[in-house]
Amino acid sequence: MIEPKDIAAFFADEKNISREDYLFFDYIFECSIDPKLAAAQLCSEQSTAQWQRAGVDEDLRLRFGAKVVALEILSTSKKSRCDFPWIRGNHFTLCRVRVAHPHRNFGPRIPNLLSAMAGEGPFYCPGISTIRLCDIHFPESYLKLFEGPQFGVRGLRERLKIHDRPFFIGVVKPNIGLAPGDFAQLAFESWVGGCDIVKDDEMMADAEWSKTAERMRFAGTARKNAEKETGRPKMLVANLTDEVDEIERLYEEAEKNGANAVMLNSLFTGISALRMLRRKSKLPVMGHFTGLALFERMSHFGIDGVVLTKLQRLSGADMIVLPGFGERMQMTDESVLKNICACLEPMGNIAPALPIPGGSDAADTFPRVLEKIGHVDFGFIAGRGIYGHSGGPRAGARSLRHAWEKATASPPPL
Amino acid sequence: MIEPKDIAAFFADEKNISREDYLFFDYIFECSIDPKLAAAQLCSEQSTAQWQRAGVDEDLRLRFGAKVVALEILSTSKKSRCDFPWIRGNHFTLCRVRVAHPHRNFGPRIPNLLSAMAGEGPFYCPGISTIRLCDIHFPESYLKLFEGPQFGVRGLRERLKIHDRPFFIGVVKPNIGLAPGDFAQLAFESWVGGCDIVKDDEMMADAEWSKTAERMRFAGTARKNAEKETGRPKMLVANLTDEVDEIERLYEEAEKNGANAVMLNSLFTGISALRMLRRKSKLPVMGHFTGLALFERMSHFGIDGVVLTKLQRLSGADMIVLPGFGERMQMTDESVLKNICACLEPMGNIAPALPIPGGSDAADTFPRVLEKIGHVDFGFIAGRGIYGHSGGPRAGARSLRHAWEKATASPPPL
Repeated sequence: MIEPKDIAAFFADEKNISREDYLFFDYIFECSIDPKLAAAQLCSEQSTAQWQRAGVDEDLRLRFGAKVVALEILSTSKKSRCDFPWIRGNHFTLCRVRVAHPHRNFGPRIPNLLSAMAGEGPFYCPGISTIRLCDIHFPESYLKLFEGPQFGVRGLRERLKIHDRPFFIGVVKPNIGLAPGDFAQLAFESWVGGCDIVKDDEMMADAEWSKTAERMRFAGTARKNAEKETGRPKMLVANLTDEVDEIERLYEEAEKNGANAVMLNSLFTGISALRMLRRKSKLPVMGHFTGLALFERMSHFGIDGVVLTKLQRLSGADMIVLPGFGERMQMTDESVLKNICACLEPMGNIAPALPIPGGSDAADTFPRVLEKIGHVDFGFIAGRGIYGHSGGPRAGARSLRHAWEKATASPPPL
Repeated sequence: MIEPKDIAAFFADEKNISREDYLFFDYIFECSIDPKLAAAQLCSEQSTAQWQRAGVDEDLRLRFGAKVVALEILSTSKKSRCDFPWIRGNHFTLCRVRVAHPHRNFGPRIPNLLSAMAGEGPFYCPGISTIRLCDIHFPESYLKLFEGPQFGVRGLRERLKIHDRPFFIGVVKPNIGLAPGDFAQLAFESWVGGCDIVKDDEMMADAEWSKTAERMRFAGTARKNAEKETGRPKMLVANLTDEVDEIERLYEEAEKNGANAVMLNSLFTGISALRMLRRKSKLPVMGHFTGLALFERMSHFGIDGVVLTKLQRLSGADMIVLPGFGERMQMTDESVLKNICACLEPMGNIAPALPIPGGSDAADTFPRVLEKIGHVDFGFIAGRGIYGHSGGPRAGARSLRHAWEKATASPPPL
C-alpha cells in the first residue's frame, strides 16, 4: 500500500498534462479506505508499482505513472456491494474516477493495454473492493497507430449496394452437425429470400464433419448462384475461430473457396487475433461478442462492453456482432445502445464499424429494434428466426424483409 | 426456449455414453424455472440450438447434443443471488450440473472450446439467472490431441538443478521505466543473492524505453555472469506479451539475446497464443494470470480459475503464475490450493506445470506459503519483496533463501 504522502504524485490536472501522451480510463470503484488513497493506489498498481530503485534518487512516476485526473464520490454505504468473503469494514464509498495512463508504457498493443487497464493492477488493488472499467478514451496520436476497419460501414454499403436500409443477416441453423452441402442449401434459400449476408454460427469450427474449406466451397457456389438469381451482391462469412496459428491458413482456404468475409470470436481468440486477421485480410472482418457476458454482466465489476467494442473496432472489425435488445440477452436497452454508439461514433482515423445487435431476433422483433436504434446503420441478424421458420429459410428471410417494408410502409429499396 | 417434451433428449446416463467422446463441464447455476428444463436448455444452447431443418425428419442431438449427466439441487431462495435489473420471479433454485459435451463439435481448439462451454450458450441462457463454470474434465483421447508442457516440473528441476526445494523467482522492479542496463543490474544482483529465475513484470512490453531485444541482451549477459559467479544455472524469463503476430518475432529476438524462458499474459493474448508459443519454443514457457479476476472473482458467476489453469497447462505452460494466498490477492486459501492442484494433478499425457502463486509475497510470508502448500513443487515469487528491500536486491533475494533455511532448519540444498 502506498503512503498518504504519495497521493499527490498520482494526481494531476487534466489541463496540465500532454493529452496526446495519455489514454483515459474511466472506472467506477468501491473502496473501504480514503477514496483519494484508493484512487492513487489504483494508479500506482497499474503503472509504477515501485517507482525507484533501493538507494537510487529517482522518481519514475513523472514519466511513467498513471494519474487521477477526476475523482467523484457517488455514494456511501455501510455494506459492500459485493459479498466476497474477504471484504471487511462498515464504510464503503462508491467513486467514479478518470485515470490518465501514459501509453508509452506499452505502446499500440491490445494485450498489453488490457494488462494495464484491466489486469493485476486494477483488479487486485488493495483497498478497492469492487471495480468496473466503464470506458476508454484515446488521443488522436494513439488511434493513428492502429489500422481500424478496412471497409467500415461505407465500404460494406458499397460492396453490397445497400444504401438506405439495414443489412439483413442470417446465421445458418442448425448450427452444429449439418453437412457442408446441406449448409449451403440453407444459405442459398435465405439469400434468395432476402438475406444480404449469411454467416457461420459462432459455434462453427473447422470440424471433421464440416471442414471450413469444404463448407465454403459449397456455400461459395451457392452464394454465386444466389447472386445470379437475385441480381444482387451477397456476402458469405466464414467463422475462422481456431487456434491463432491456424487462422491464416483457414483464411486462405476460406477465401479461395468463395467466402467473401471472415469472422472471429474475438474475445476467445484474443482481440489481437482480430487485428492480425485484419492485417492479412482482403475481405471484411467481423468480430463476434460470444464471451462478452463474462466481462460485462455484473453492474459493478468487470469491463463494460463499450470498451471491448471499441477495442474490436480499433483492431479492424468492419462488423461487430453484439448482444441485442430484450430480456433474452439480459442487456438493458441503454447498454445495447452504448455498444452500438461505440461502433459508429467519431474515432479519429478509425472508420465506423457496422453494429449487429442480435440474439433470438426474428421478423416480429424487427420494428422494436429499428425504433430503438432510430437509424438504419445496423445489421439485423436472425438464426432460428430464418432457418427455423415453418415455411423454410426462404420464407424466413422474406419475413424479415416484409417486416422492413411494413415498418417503412414502402417497398424495400433494392 | 425448448419445450418440456424436449427435456429427455438432453439427459443421459453417464454409464451409457461413450466417455472418450465427451468433455465434462461442471456448472453451478441459479434458475427461475424448473431446474430440469433449465439444465436441458443449457445443453441445447451450448450445442444443437436448432437440431433439425424445417421440414426434415432428423435429430442432430443424437451425435452433437450436449447432455446433462448429473443434476443436483443445492438450495432454493425467494431472492436471486444477483441484482441484475432484468431478473424476475420469487423462486430461485441453485443447482450443480455436469454436462457431457461431444468434443467432435469443435475438436482440439481452445477458442472454440471456450465458445462452447463459456460463450453465448451458457451465459445468455433463457431461464438461468446466474452461472459459473466450475471445472472441466477431459477424456484421455482429447488430452492426446494436445502437446502440454514441453519441460514441466521435472524438466525445470533438471535445467536448474533444483531437486528438493521450491524455486525462487524475482520479478524485476521498478517494473516500468527502467533502462535495459539498469534492469540487468538488478536482475544480476537478485540472481547472485539466491534467485533461480528472474522474470519481466507482466506489465513489461517491447516498449520504446526498453526494447525486448536490448533488455534481453543486457540481462542475458547478466545471467551468464551470475551463473559464473554462483556456479549455478539461472533462468531469465522474457515477457513476450504483444499482438499475437509479433510473438514469434519477439521469441526469436529474446532467445538470440540470452533469454532462456518466455512468458505470456495468456488471458489477454488468448490462451491459444500460449499454445502457439509452446509449439515454436525451445525454451520453457510461462503463463501469467493477469486478468484472471475478471473471470473468477464472483462466487456465483464466471469461470473458476481451475478451468483456466487447466487450459494453460493443456496449451503447454511449463510454469503458471497464479494469484497467491492472503487478503492481498482477494483469494480464499481453498481457491489458491485448487489452482495449484490443477497444475500438478495427473492429467493423462499432459506433464505437470510448476505452480507459482504470488502477489506481494516476501521473506516474511514464505513460511505461511510453504505450510499451506505442504510440499516443495512450487515457485516462490517476489517483486517488491526482493527489489524493494532496503538492502538492495541481493539482500532481498538472500532474505528469501534465509526464510527457506529457517523454515527447514537446515542449510539450503544447493
